[in-house]
Amino acid sequence: MLTRARTVAALAALASLSWGAPAPAPPVHSASPYAGAAGRIIGAELLDGQAFEILAHLTDGIGPRLSGSAGAEEAVAWTAERLRSYGLAVAKEEVLVPHWVRGLEEAEILAPAPQRLLVTALGGSEPTPADGVTAEVVEAAGIEGLQSLGKDAVRGRIVLFNAPMPVRGMEGYSAAVPQRTRGASEAARLGAVAALVRSVGTLSARLPHTGALNYQDSAPRIPAAAVTAEDADLIHRLLASGEAVRLRLRLGCRTLPDAPSANVVADLQGRESPGEIVVIAAHLDSWDLGTGAIDDGAGVAMVMEALRLLEELGLRPRRTIRGVLYMNEENGLRGGKAYAEAHASELPRHVAALETDSGAARPTGLSATVGEGGLERLGDLARLLRPLGADSIAAGGGGADIGPLQAASVPLLGLRLDGTRYFDWHHSPADTLDKVDAQELALGAAAVAVVAYTLAEMPETLPRPAPPSPAPPSPAAPPRP
Amino acid sequence: MLTRARTVAALAALASLSWGAPAPAPPVHSASPYAGAAGRIIGAELLDGQAFEILAHLTDGIGPRLSGSAGAEEAVAWTAERLRSYGLAVAKEEVLVPHWVRGLEEAEILAPAPQRLLVTALGGSEPTPADGVTAEVVEAAGIEGLQSLGKDAVRGRIVLFNAPMPVRGMEGYSAAVPQRTRGASEAARLGAVAALVRSVGTLSARLPHTGALNYQDSAPRIPAAAVTAEDADLIHRLLASGEAVRLRLRLGCRTLPDAPSANVVADLQGRESPGEIVVIAAHLDSWDLGTGAIDDGAGVAMVMEALRLLEELGLRPRRTIRGVLYMNEENGLRGGKAYAEAHASELPRHVAALETDSGAARPTGLSATVGEGGLERLGDLARLLRPLGADSIAAGGGGADIGPLQAASVPLLGLRLDGTRYFDWHHSPADTLDKVDAQELALGAAAVAVVAYTLAEMPETLPRPAPPSPAPPSPAAPPRP
Repeated sequence: MLTRARTVAALAALASLSWGAPAPAPPVHSASPYAGAAGRIIGAELLDGQAFEILAHLTDGIGPRLSGSAGAEEAVAWTAERLRSYGLAVAKEEVLVPHWVRGLEEAEILAPAPQRLLVTALGGSEPTPADGVTAEVVEAAGIEGLQSLGKDAVRGRIVLFNAPMPVRGMEGYSAAVPQRTRGASEAARLGAVAALVRSVGTLSARLPHTGALNYQDSAPRIPAAAVTAEDADLIHRLLASGEAVRLRLRLGCRTLPDAPSANVVADLQGRESPGEIVVIAAHLDSWDLGTGAIDDGAGVAMVMEALRLLEELGLRPRRTIRGVLYMNEENGLRGGKAYAEAHASELPRHVAALETDSGAARPTGLSATVGEGGLERLGDLARLLRPLGADSIAAGGGGADIGPLQAASVPLLGLRLDGTRYFDWHHSPADTLDKVDAQELALGAAAVAVVAYTLAEMPETLPRPAPPSPAPPSPAAPPRP
Repeated sequence: MLTRARTVAALAALASLSWGAPAPAPPVHSASPYAGAAGRIIGAELLDGQAFEILAHLTDGIGPRLSGSAGAEEAVAWTAERLRSYGLAVAKEEVLVPHWVRGLEEAEILAPAPQRLLVTALGGSEPTPADGVTAEVVEAAGIEGLQSLGKDAVRGRIVLFNAPMPVRGMEGYSAAVPQRTRGASEAARLGAVAALVRSVGTLSARLPHTGALNYQDSAPRIPAAAVTAEDADLIHRLLASGEAVRLRLRLGCRTLPDAPSANVVADLQGRESPGEIVVIAAHLDSWDLGTGAIDDGAGVAMVMEALRLLEELGLRPRRTIRGVLYMNEENGLRGGKAYAEAHASELPRHVAALETDSGAARPTGLSATVGEGGLERLGDLARLLRPLGADSIAAGGGGADIGPLQAASVPLLGLRLDGTRYFDWHHSPADTLDKVDAQELALGAAAVAVVAYTLAEMPETLPRPAPPSPAPPSPAAPPRP
């Protein structure tokens, strides 16, 4: 247990940080009845937190965790065991997941002059024939650009979707990612034989960024790969100079039968109303190129650490806090759907769900999908995060895994984190532990713990949002991180 | 031809640049008799330069140019043809070069838990057996760290040389690179079965940086590869936590028989003393992972452009300016040696040699290996580069290809360029055209042209340096860029 003196020391250290807290503010929102608990949580995490150690095991010790892989199963087993060691009630709830595996991936420009390209298959892509797909390339400025090309320009060609992220952060990602998720099917509908997509990312380091593609039933399933920004630029320059660019793409990826896997669910039982539940969530699976440190090992570490910390500090709130480590966020969302189905009868008493799936950088605040008046009430809660510089509130959002809970009007929250560099590494081989600052990760873990504790302790609950309007057809589905 | 008005406009534009020129300085060193020519050169290059276009063809149009490859031969043919089109006398001077080819490269940690590593063979490495080399890893903090480990710790192991670059730029490179050039042999001498070397670079983007290794005759030739910084850190953390790390390395690289290739030598004939020669040099070959834009396509473009520009402006100086585009700087220096041998009788009348092989960023000045009083005389010359912010002079250096000329006491100069980001991309897949700013490259080309013109026009010549002291044994040879 932490002594009071050590907590005070931690808060003093915290007060000296410059993360955007207006200078005269007290270290915590002292008018709040939860200020004492928040102070203890933040102080303890900064002094003695284990979030980075958890993340190090997930990434260094286990490694990539793509659904269906040995790494994913090891992550299920290890996190369940570790959560049990905290004294929590833990269940592995079965989920059947897609099992896609990467294979050989090669691309080269054959004309005007041979050049090897760096590519990586998009998750879920069909393979090419063994000798590849060879065709001329036509360039499209995103999905809209494709439509303006028309069928004659696209038929028999490889389409290069080449719209860069217009700005850093989630806004830029949302703008660029439809070409990755939908491009292959849109191109196939116009007769394309394969699709290449400019890596959706913000670093120029010849990095391929993978990610899921969603084939539409109405279009042929053509192979699709991400190319690095540099390679996309090369093709662009050759085409712009009037050259015909002929290219060969070889992908050896395969889709195997669905594999059994699991969500890991751990309850910190509520003191008074254990049937009322606050979910804190992240996803266990990762892409296979890196070790999934920022996406979403960091979120897993924050959730596990928040539970450990509350248990260790003896902060057992009125309601149950449930950690859910979802499987298969990246390429299927099967875990999110399975949880919503399996727990359908409990969802009316899910008072909130918070997901942390935006990296490992310093927290900046919360996003929220809540009923009328909910944002104002969250403002009070968020002031507890002011010493972390994390007291901003944005309307909308939550997280991909908890999205299915909105149908039952569960208030959805997302932990927002500084996103300046997130897409430098996201879904690429460079998503590795060294990108994470232990102190920043600790701030995120503390924020999750403070929010979870407060939501589970405060007498009132957040106003519930309306269920979402009927799902739009798949082409307009929002991009998944 | 450029009109005077356009030149004046270019100089006006130039004067507004903020590259470090003290504000009240005139755009060129007006007291110098060469100020008029320098102004014309700089203005013309900034208005109508072709350096970037040349570089684009070398990188986008031809691609990687490793000695012995089709790309290298295409570069010889294309640059010779283009230099001829400027009206210069051009020769392809035969050089026999090493012909090493990359093959499969794979590495994985087998224990404590499987993890795939990103590696790339060091240039010249022997292959592993087809099923790889499997052994435990021992970590060494550079060459010095290896010696302190001793034979018992190294025998039968794979040595990971893991000293990072201590600072950015050439100083940091020089400190870290001996583990790449000499590590394999030093480790083999202590019984190691393979060597891994932390990529010598400054960007954390899971980038492998290749480069030459030099096997010593006195040690077994063990396979050697670069690992990314991230992978080196991973192994370090596992070892630091007390784990034994077992690893398998597979390299399929091969050394083929030496291949015929050539230096490209182009003369802008001197007006009065054509037998006196100022060499301006760069190297045509590049590593194979990227397209060699910064190393050394940029230098090639500067040299070619300087010759084109002087010819176009009708600036034919007293002496001959000879562009030498060397082959095989990266893994053998055969071109540099061949030129010195083939032109031995001319070397007493080589009045200076300038190499540009430090990237494509803005020029900052000159380095020089000259006789007594030479640096002072160069100060006058360098003042002509003040409008470019390139008027600093450093003692020592020159360039790898022109190094063999020092035995004949040829004054050696190197064009210095801003090196802040050079080692982010150097020898990696990310050495591509997009890393080059056309305006900065033009400044470099202008600097080469101004220096070459002035050295070839001024009545006096630079004091000749003493020949180097007898070459030290190969382990202490200076690192090659």
